[in-house]
Amino acid sequence: MSREPRAKRLSQAVPSNRNLWAVVPAGGSGTRLWPLSRAARPKFLLPLLGERSLLQETINRLAPSVPPERTLVVCGPAHAAPVARQLPALPESNVLVEPAPRGSGPAIALATALIARRDPTAIVGSFAADHEVSDLPRFDVALRIAVAAAEDGWLVTIGLSPTRPETGYGYIERSDEIVAGTPEGSAYRAARFVEKPDAATASEYVASGRFLWNASMFVWQAQALLDELARLLPDLHAGVSRIAEVWGTPEQERVAADVWSELAESTIDQGVLEQANRIAVVPAQFGWSDVGDWNNLGELIERDDFGNSVRGDVVQSQTRNSVVWSETGRLVALVGLENIAVVDTADALLVVNRGAAQDVRTIVEQLKTMHRPGF
Amino acid sequence: MSREPRAKRLSQAVPSNRNLWAVVPAGGSGTRLWPLSRAARPKFLLPLLGERSLLQETINRLAPSVPPERTLVVCGPAHAAPVARQLPALPESNVLVEPAPRGSGPAIALATALIARRDPTAIVGSFAADHEVSDLPRFDVALRIAVAAAEDGWLVTIGLSPTRPETGYGYIERSDEIVAGTPEGSAYRAARFVEKPDAATASEYVASGRFLWNASMFVWQAQALLDELARLLPDLHAGVSRIAEVWGTPEQERVAADVWSELAESTIDQGVLEQANRIAVVPAQFGWSDVGDWNNLGELIERDDFGNSVRGDVVQSQTRNSVVWSETGRLVALVGLENIAVVDTADALLVVNRGAAQDVRTIVEQLKTMHRPGF
Repeated sequence: MSREPRAKRLSQAVPSNRNLWAVVPAGGSGTRLWPLSRAARPKFLLPLLGERSLLQETINRLAPSVPPERTLVVCGPAHAAPVARQLPALPESNVLVEPAPRGSGPAIALATALIARRDPTAIVGSFAADHEVSDLPRFDVALRIAVAAAEDGWLVTIGLSPTRPETGYGYIERSDEIVAGTPEGSAYRAARFVEKPDAATASEYVASGRFLWNASMFVWQAQALLDELARLLPDLHAGVSRIAEVWGTPEQERVAADVWSELAESTIDQGVLEQANRIAVVPAQFGWSDVGDWNNLGELIERDDFGNSVRGDVVQSQTRNSVVWSETGRLVALVGLENIAVVDTADALLVVNRGAAQDVRTIVEQLKTMHRPGF
Repeated sequence: MSREPRAKRLSQAVPSNRNLWAVVPAGGSGTRLWPLSRAARPKFLLPLLGERSLLQETINRLAPSVPPERTLVVCGPAHAAPVARQLPALPESNVLVEPAPRGSGPAIALATALIARRDPTAIVGSFAADHEVSDLPRFDVALRIAVAAAEDGWLVTIGLSPTRPETGYGYIERSDEIVAGTPEGSAYRAARFVEKPDAATASEYVASGRFLWNASMFVWQAQALLDELARLLPDLHAGVSRIAEVWGTPEQERVAADVWSELAESTIDQGVLEQANRIAVVPAQFGWSDVGDWNNLGELIERDDFGNSVRGDVVQSQTRNSVVWSETGRLVALVGLENIAVVDTADALLVVNRGAAQDVRTIVEQLKTMHRPGF
């Protein structure tokens, strides 16, 4: 997939005086982008595709529709300071620090509960901090359709038209029932969610035209989500409600720590969406990538005449479709390679076949087992 | 080709009170082993296969038959000091410094002329400084046969039985005429020399059983070589004779510089052996390698259960038949690789397909063109 040129933005997605809020869960370290990403320097903080970090790009993408006052970032304690510095326009109280990671369920639920207290009529959009979108006008169209469906009470996902039979993603099957829309497009009732399929199934999904990638992009009324939480995950609902009640008081930290220590891990996808009623999906295509691994990242970086995507001081001979990311200033020489990624950092070097880029996480696991936490 | 265990040495090759001398031309930088080898740190000075450098191993291999007093190393000005330090037993006057590189012809001719002045009856063996031999008893057998043939007036090469249809080497065809020998084996009249053949021809050569690799291992009477030089390369003969006359006098440096500046480049192989009469070849097989490139070197380093040969702090996943040489202490991670070599030095990193290992020299050429002489 070649990266499309970044299309010029024509308008706000949603008039910014409307009651749209944004939640940006900034979790995960992006182990498949090791050794560039580390626990202390997770993927969303890295400027992988330009001057700005993926987190900064995410906030910028939403900014025309959602001002900083209505944007909340949820992150871990270790990342609160860099998040605050990367987003100077964000009010300090909009950096929500989770005491410990518990998955997207608790993170999004807490942010939604806090938003509902401040604006009971809020519409909330949730967008991962570490994804890439290249076609902003089309993103805006999808967001407008999703907001329209959310206003009608639907829990809405924005699903991406698959461009390959990816087995690493979850899929959403849409029905034929149009439940909401704008003159620009429609939201459909979601038929079902499927976790990572095998390759044959993924190919069928792509061919069918009815399956979309689940990119964890959600839009809903804050109250609609909280109602479903109360029904499906009552412990989580009770916990975040307790925290929201004391938020901003001297009790906040103690209550948050107590509640969090008892919470089960959960994801919004499996914990809520796969069980809930009135789930809609907006089919979209806007140059989305999860920038998930070195193969993906290579596709997003400009390629030379030989298909090589390089950052650094590189010389090559007979090398095709390869990726170099060098941060050391060292000379990197490639000879006779095809489809190889080389990642050169001060203390670690990775050489990976792009076809095995997902397996980089096994290296991170090995290093954990070997008690080499610096990596 | 798997490396044979180093066989225990049983005896001297040639009784060390005989008049055998050794010349070890230490030239070339080994560009195919870049970035480990550099102009200032050529291959022969590097400890590639153990604690000792290839030069030290070469001298040690000869030591039972040739004492240091009868061993001469010929090198360039930049390498005289490291050669002297690596070989503390070698008399200082046995480090011959060529004013400039002119190929193996002038280097070996000068050393031979100097030896002939000190011992007119000398037998001289010449062996490259940067090759590997794993089976020393068999090396000694070949050396004994070669010395026997040289004593009968033959210019002798030791030729290696080819183990693969290598297109990067020269070949020697032997005739069926046995010209000398010992109870351990025979020397044959050489029929012809062939420079690097194409792949089909190389395969025929290997199948024939009559072709041997030319590893530039020569044994001859000093006077026999000088006589052929006088006939075939009279300018070279005159030049080295002039230098030999003033060697050890205050004139030495000036005369050597004058002569060298006028000398044409030549190799002993093409300049003498391919033209001379009475050339013999001793067929041999003693675990020889020219340690020519990263593919060869990988074969000489011990392999793990996955066929990987590694030096350094390495973790891997699904990686086979690959090579890591790391000098930086950094962690090197390999994922999903097959037949790749990674060479990690302080200022340069090389990643090369082992099948393209010969092409590393093109990187060195590119860097020269780019005026980056540090590399």
